[in-house]
Order: sequence, then C-alpha cells, then structure tokens
Amino acid sequence: DRPLTVIAGPCQLESLDHALMIARHMAGVCAKAGAGYVFKASYDKANRTSLTGKRGVGMEAGLKILAAVKDEIGCPVLTDVHTAEQCAQAAEVCDILQIPAFLCRQTDLLLAAGETGAAINVKKGQFLAPWDMANVADKVASTGNSRILLTERGTSFGYNTLVADMRGLPEMMKTGYPVVMDATHSVQQPGGQGGSSGGQREFAPVMARAAVSLGIAAVFIETHEAPDTAPSDGPNMIPLDQMGALIDGLMAFDRLAKADPIRL
Amino acid sequence: DRPLTVIAGPCQLESLDHALMIARHMAGVCAKAGAGYVFKASYDKANRTSLTGKRGVGMEAGLKILAAVKDEIGCPVLTDVHTAEQCAQAAEVCDILQIPAFLCRQTDLLLAAGETGAAINVKKGQFLAPWDMANVADKVASTGNSRILLTERGTSFGYNTLVADMRGLPEMMKTGYPVVMDATHSVQQPGGQGGSSGGQREFAPVMARAAVSLGIAAVFIETHEAPDTAPSDGPNMIPLDQMGALIDGLMAFDRLAKADPIRL
Amino acid sequence: DRPLTVIAGPCQLESLDHALMIARHMAGVCAKAGAGYVFKASYDKANRTSLTGKRGVGMEAGLKILAAVKDEIGCPVLTDVHTAEQCAQAAEVCDILQIPAFLCRQTDLLLAAGETGAAINVKKGQFLAPWDMANVADKVASTGNSRILLTERGTSFGYNTLVADMRGLPEMMKTGYPVVMDATHSVQQPGGQGGSSGGQREFAPVMARAAVSLGIAAVFIETHEAPDTAPSDGPNMIPLDQMGALIDGLMAFDRLAKADPIRL
Amino acid sequence: DRPLTVIAGPCQLESLDHALMIARHMAGVCAKAGAGYVFKASYDKANRTSLTGKRGVGMEAGLKILAAVKDEIGCPVLTDVHTAEQCAQAAEVCDILQIPAFLCRQTDLLLAAGETGAAINVKKGQFLAPWDMANVADKVASTGNSRILLTERGTSFGYNTLVADMRGLPEMMKTGYPVVMDATHSVQQPGGQGGSSGGQREFAPVMARAAVSLGIAAVFIETHEAPDTAPSDGPNMIPLDQMGALIDGLMAFDRLAKADPIRL
Repeated sequence: DRPLTVIAGPCQLESLDHALMIARHMAGVCAKAGAGYVFKASYDKANRTSLTGKRGVGMEAGLKILAAVKDEIGCPVLTDVHTAEQCAQAAEVCDILQIPAFLCRQTDLLLAAGETGAAINVKKGQFLAPWDMANVADKVASTGNSRILLTERGTSFGYNTLVADMRGLPEMMKTGYPVVMDATHSVQQPGGQGGSSGGQREFAPVMARAAVSLGIAAVFIETHEAPDTAPSDGPNMIPLDQMGALIDGLMAFDRLAKADPIRL
Repeated sequence: DRPLTVIAGPCQLESLDHALMIARHMAGVCAKAGAGYVFKASYDKANRTSLTGKRGVGMEAGLKILAAVKDEIGCPVLTDVHTAEQCAQAAEVCDILQIPAFLCRQTDLLLAAGETGAAINVKKGQFLAPWDMANVADKVASTGNSRILLTERGTSFGYNTLVADMRGLPEMMKTGYPVVMDATHSVQQPGGQGGSSGGQREFAPVMARAAVSLGIAAVFIETHEAPDTAPSDGPNMIPLDQMGALIDGLMAFDRLAKADPIRL
Repeated sequence: DRPLTVIAGPCQLESLDHALMIARHMAGVCAKAGAGYVFKASYDKANRTSLTGKRGVGMEAGLKILAAVKDEIGCPVLTDVHTAEQCAQAAEVCDILQIPAFLCRQTDLLLAAGETGAAINVKKGQFLAPWDMANVADKVASTGNSRILLTERGTSFGYNTLVADMRGLPEMMKTGYPVVMDATHSVQQPGGQGGSSGGQREFAPVMARAAVSLGIAAVFIETHEAPDTAPSDGPNMIPLDQMGALIDGLMAFDRLAKADPIRL
Repeated sequence: DRPLTVIAGPCQLESLDHALMIARHMAGVCAKAGAGYVFKASYDKANRTSLTGKRGVGMEAGLKILAAVKDEIGCPVLTDVHTAEQCAQAAEVCDILQIPAFLCRQTDLLLAAGETGAAINVKKGQFLAPWDMANVADKVASTGNSRILLTERGTSFGYNTLVADMRGLPEMMKTGYPVVMDATHSVQQPGGQGGSSGGQREFAPVMARAAVSLGIAAVFIETHEAPDTAPSDGPNMIPLDQMGALIDGLMAFDRLAKADPIRL
C-alpha cells in the first residue's frame, strides 16, 4: 500500500549525459509528486523487429552509465538481461533485473537472474495468460529470491496489435508479488511499421490511469525528450516534458486506489 | 462532465415487485452517492445461448412493469429492443432504447429506434472495433436523433471469452456521444457453460473502476439479490447488497476523472 | 459423402439479367466439374458497415429474380433472411434460407426459418466458438426441421480482421449436419476500409482448398464479373472468369477427401 | 515442388534406443510413402510451463544420440538451440538447427545459427504475423546462409489457446523459403493444464492435411509410442502407430497440391 513507484527512462541508453538528463528530470518529477522512482534503460535491444534497428551501446558501456546514474541521481536502476551469463554482472550495478516478455519462460535465464539476489521484474509474455505468470514467478522463487515483480505489457490480439486486459492486474496480484503496468509497451503495435514497431503513444496515459486506479505497485513508462527521433520505440514513448503532469495526475488516482483496494 | 450515471437492474424482468425492489434500492444508493440512476431490465432475452434459457415476461407485461417503475420510483428506464417493430411501442414507456450488441449493425433497427426520438444506447458488437461505432452512430443520427450513447461490453478474444480494451472508451468518446461501460457483460464468458454463458462476476468492479477512472458518462451493471438463482446472466451479475459500496467507491474515481479529463 | 456442392453467386442481386448470367455460368462450370450447384444472392444487405452502402433491390423484386433463376437455370436458390416475418415468403421461392452470422443466435428468426421446412443454412457468428453452434442448430431442429447446414465464415481476431480456424469444420461436423466453408467472407476485413469492409480476395481459394481437403459438404463463394465495381463485398469476391478453374481444382481435393474422411 | 518432407520424432530425447526406435519406424513409413524424412528431437526443454517439467538429457548426451541416429538410420537430424553459444556445437551433428518460437526475434541467436551454415528452421512466434517473418529470415540471411525454413505453429488466440491461420502459409511462401506446418504444436493449449500445456491431439491430422493441401514443403509432427506417458507435450503428440496411415494420407494430398500450386 505504499505510494506508486514510477519506472521510467528512455527505451535504450544513448549516452551518459542523456541518461542523466532524463533520470534527473524524472527523479525531480517523482519526488515532487510523492512517487517512488526507478531509472530504466536498456544497453542492448536484443530482439529488434529487423536487423537494421539500432541495438544500443552494449553491456559494458551501458552498465557504466547505469552506475553513474545511480550514483549521481541516487535512484535505483533497472535494466533488462537477455542471457543467463549477463545476470551476475548486471546485478552488480542494477537494483532490478528485468526479464523481457519474449524470454519470460526461459528457465535458465529466470534462475540465473533469481540467483543474483537482485529484484527481478518479469514481463508477462504476449502469449501468456495472467494466471500463467504464477508458474513463471515460481521459477524465480525456487532460487530463494522472492523479490519479484510481474509486469503487464499487453497480450497478442490479432496481428500487429496488443490488448491490455485489466483483469490481468488483480489476477497477477493474487501471487502476492507487486504488479507493474507497462503503459508504453502495451500500446505498441509490434511489427506495425513493417521493419519496426508502431505505437499509439496517445493511449499510454489511458492505460496508466486505468491500471493505477486498480491499486498496482508501479507503472512503467518509457520517455524521451524527442520520441520521434529516438533510436527505438519512438511511436509509443511519452515526451519527457509531459511526464510531470502525467505523474501528478496518476498519484491522485493512486491515493484513491490504495485507500480502497480491489479485493477479488 | 456531469457526475456518473449508473444504469442498473436485473438482466430480465421477473415481476413488478421484483423490479420495484431493485429500482428502489438502486435509486437510493445512487442518490446517496450523488450518481444519476437509470433502471435497466429486459422483457425478452431474444438470443439466449440455448433454447432452454428463459426468455422473459414478454413485451406487453414488461412495458407495464417498466412504466410502473418509472412512475413509482421516478427514474428513467431503459430496455432493449430486438426488431424495428418494437421500437415505437417501447419508446412510449422507455427513456432509453438499447440496441443489443449482436444487432448493432442492423440498419432498420437502428433507424426505427432513432426515429422514436428516445435516447438510443447502442452496445458495441463483440465483433467490432471501437472506431467502427462511428458508422453505427451515424445510422441513428441520420434520423435526426442525436441522443445517442455508445456502450463497451467486450470484444471477442479467442473462444468463449471477451476482453475489454480500455482504449475503446476514449476512442468512442471521439464521436462526441456519451460512452458507457457495461461492467457485467464485459466479464461474460459467452457459451462458457455449454448451454449457457459463464461469467467472472468478481472482475466486474475491476472493469467498472478502470473505466470510470477514464471519465466515462455512465456505467452499466446488472444486479440481482440472488444472482446464482437468477433466470439469466447470474454468473456475471453483482449481488444487490454490494451495489452501495461499489457505487460509493466508483463516485470517488468519477470525481477525480471528471476533474482531470483524458485528452487524446 | 456426396460430391462437393458449390453455393455461389453475387453478394447482392443487381438485376434479372445479371443473376441469370452468373447462375448460368456457375451452373455450367459446376456441371462440368461434377459439383452440385446452388445459386446464392441477397435481396437486402441489412447490416452494411455504413448507411451509404447500397442495400439492394428489396424482397419483392429479389424473390422474383430468384424464382426466375430457379425456373430458368434449374438450380436450387439460397437467400438470407433478416426477420422472422420474411421467412415464410422467402421460403416460397428459396430452397435454402440463410441466417446471417450476426443474427445466428436470434431465437425467433431461427424458429421462424425452421418452421418453413426449407433447408436452413446458419452462418456461425464471428463471436462464437464452433461448439456453440450445436445450441444454434438445436433451436432450428426444435421446429422439427432437421435440414440444417452450418457455415464457417471466420472468427473475430483482433480488430477488423477474421481468422478461419480449420478445427471448426470437423468440430461442427460432429453435429451430424452438413458443414459449409464460406471462403470469401472468411477473408473479409470487417470495417477495414472505414466506411466499408475490406477483403483479401487472393486468399479465398486458399481457404476453400484447405476446407475442402477436410471433407466438407459445400463451399460458399461470392463471385462477380467485375468485383471492384460490385455494389458490396467487392474486395473479397472472386472474378467470375476464375471460377471454372477454381472449382475444377477443388473437386480433385474433394474426391480425395471424401475417399479418406477425417475421423475425430 | 519436391515431395513433402516429414520432420518427426519425440518431443524430447529419452534414450538412444528410444530415439532409434522412433527414427527407424518413421524412416520406414516415409520411405514407403515417398516422403522425405528428418528426425526431430530436443535435448533440452528450456522453457517449460513450470519448473517441475522434465528438461531432458542435456546437450552433450543429446548430440551423441542425434549423431547415432543420423549414422544408423541415415536420415538428417534436427534439434532446437536456445543460446548463441550452442549453435556451433549443435551444427557439428545436426543438419537443421531450429529456433524456438519464443526466441524467433533474438538477433544474436539467429545470427549465430545462420553462421554455422546449417539449415535453419525458424518457428514463427505465437506473437507474430506471418509477414513479420520476412524480417526474421533477413536476420539469418544476413550471415550469407540462405538455407532457411519458416514454420507455422499457431498464433495466440485468447488465453491458453492457439489458432493456425491458413493464410500464413502462402504468405510466408512469398519469402521464397520452404514453409513447414507444425501440426502438433499448433494444436497445443499453452499452460492449459495449469502447470503444463494441454493439447488437442485429435486435430493435428486436420491441421496437417489442410496445410499439405496448400503445397507446403514439410510437415512437422511430434510422435511417441505412448504419448500419455511422454515427458512433455503428450497431449498433442500423435501415437507412433498411427503415423504410417497419416503420412500415406498426406502424400496423396501433397501430390495433388504440388501439381496445382496456389499462386497468390
């Protein structure tokens, strides 16, 4: 029943200055609004729609930036890992390791991540039902690590489209683990632009608000100062200068939701 | 930006006493909570899953009950119509005529309903996209009647299951017509019990709250004092004695949502 | 295990000459290929995407054309009915009455159709599972009429798209009634062009062949000499001059399928 | 336009004797029917629904068995790889490396697989449209390896269910690469039994026949002498003693399809 945490940052790391700029802005916005804040960014986009999509700065450079953000801004940092081998090293820097949706059933990755002792945020696969995530969480918990988060980011709905089923949030809450709404990926249109994914940025605040009203622990939002020229996920990222108003608005719904919890 | 209206009542009319009992309870609950109230009930379930499902009291008897509810409780009443021929007669009693989801593209029915001058609530077909409803509304509006409401009640999602896409609510709001969330039918499991539909009653308050947080005009909720023995839609109706707390809770979210409208 | 029947004709009746031209061509093609033939056309498109879509010649004029086709070409004729009132009159001319997919659960329509004694072809709703059609067929059969056909025409799959699940064909065969594949509507993209439906004509022969290979009783194909200028469903109709080769090809698969039936 | 190839074997390797028994049976069946044959089995089930599912014999032991099958039976062998590191070693034994559906967009895995020079069979993700696979194939082809196969294995369709869209087969054929139908996984019900996946074994021959009638290059079928006691995927595997009749039947449809190719 703690106030909402905001997990936010650019889709991918671009440079130290860029990461610091976004983290500083978001930390300020969240502090002012009374929200928790976790900086999020990827060092490698390992599953782009097509080979021509930019992959990112790489693990070494990325972890250095994340460490600097953590040090300078003082916020926890989250990044996603793609192989079992990356987990230990990433966990030296990151407070939260994230398991990408496509990889959410890869047992070795889940176990390696769990064994680091870091908090593990597993994104629900686009091909899974909400109740299937209990089995996924069990894989992580088998390592003795119960610091698990489960994230809704949309379910396949026909071709090149996702739908976010609000029932999934309280359903996943039944596990007892904190539940996160990924407001920007759930409005992604995978492969929707042929060689890259489309998105419906305008609906991200809609998904965020609906989910926050249900009493979730955290909201995940990708943001960029110029989404349309960002190296990835531009069509669904929220412009950085709109984040303050968005978070302020969400916190009002969060207070109401936390005071009147949904009970299934 | 008026306060939320609650459209509520039993799935089907059972008797005058039963209708009055529910309408009186709901009118009281809504008045106390500051919500508008419309009594809803059907005189004929014209498309039951199987032939053995009870159809209801019929049009003549049903309209008499609805007139009595309107007269005695003083609230507007809504019922659904199934053929063009029924519209004029139903409109003599009812403030709002409702077009069932399966029939939402039947041109003659939409025109006949529109021509009555009553308000027309069209349920979005389980087979339609939210943006398709603009064409549907245009059919009604072509009669010169612009008192139109559009209702989300879930979209086909695999077999025997619906999903309610929150994006559909602001998408339909673009038409300028009031948008309604049908919280109990959107958690229906059509045909899910073989000879009848199943439902997930426990998720109806979830859908209602998520939708109300987006600033919708009205919420539609079927209710019964003993849902498990109701003649239809028992698995998704809300017990009548839980409606007060539910509406109270929703009004807090409604006030917040109306003060901070979603703008696409 | 009789040879495949082809139900084919234009989406809507345009004129007597037009109907005769198509029926004559199709009857010749089917006779040559060893297929049964039923002429299909609608006198009223009662649920167009938008109000501006052409509705057709109307019931009186339409039934006259159908009677003339039946008389002159000597083939059975099929048309779709939209209200209970239309059934008796349509059955005076038509050998098969068709229940549109959106209306496949409207009890009164199914009963009125059944009571005519005509064969009744019910299209499976885009919102139904294949096994749900047993309840639908039971409604018709309750009238004592067991001359029932069940037609697959695609299931809602995300927005503005259908998918035809091949499992549905043998699943519906379990009822014992003849099963029909509607090859042209199952590649429709409902509402896909905003004010009208789109379609993927090129995939209709794909759906037809896959279905025929499973041993279905009949295939339903809309055809037109100039689909791109047809008053409705142009995007998914097959050009008339391609029907001969298509039917010839299908009959080879039909013979193989009938010699080696699928047994669930 | 070569005759159909059958890719068949148990879901997971159990022992050398077991693998040889199945490969010998299938090689005989396919030779008799005039079909090509590739032995398929997994050494590691890396993404089981739950942690308690058996994972398999491991890579070292598995590759030894596969080498022995290849040597003794004389057929090509296929196995699936889960990390970039496994590719080179697996390719020393295997003729075809298979990319699991969940991993079909993992760029490093696709590149590492492609670089081995082995044929690469990529299963289409349950979350992808058929046309998205062109981008996936391009990733493999960027290594200079154009020996690529694309496999349909079903698309997410609501929760715990897949649907196989027949349009996807000719759509993927547009890439010019051979297209495979995975008849047993496309009738899987992912997570459908809570801690493991369910399946509809009885529909696998339905999917196989429909797909073969469209002229695909190969059909993928998991088989076991006692599916109900198999360590994984029992609910959708075909009993080994039914494979002969199934393949015989499919070859008749294959000959017809290859003689009359679908042209989009």
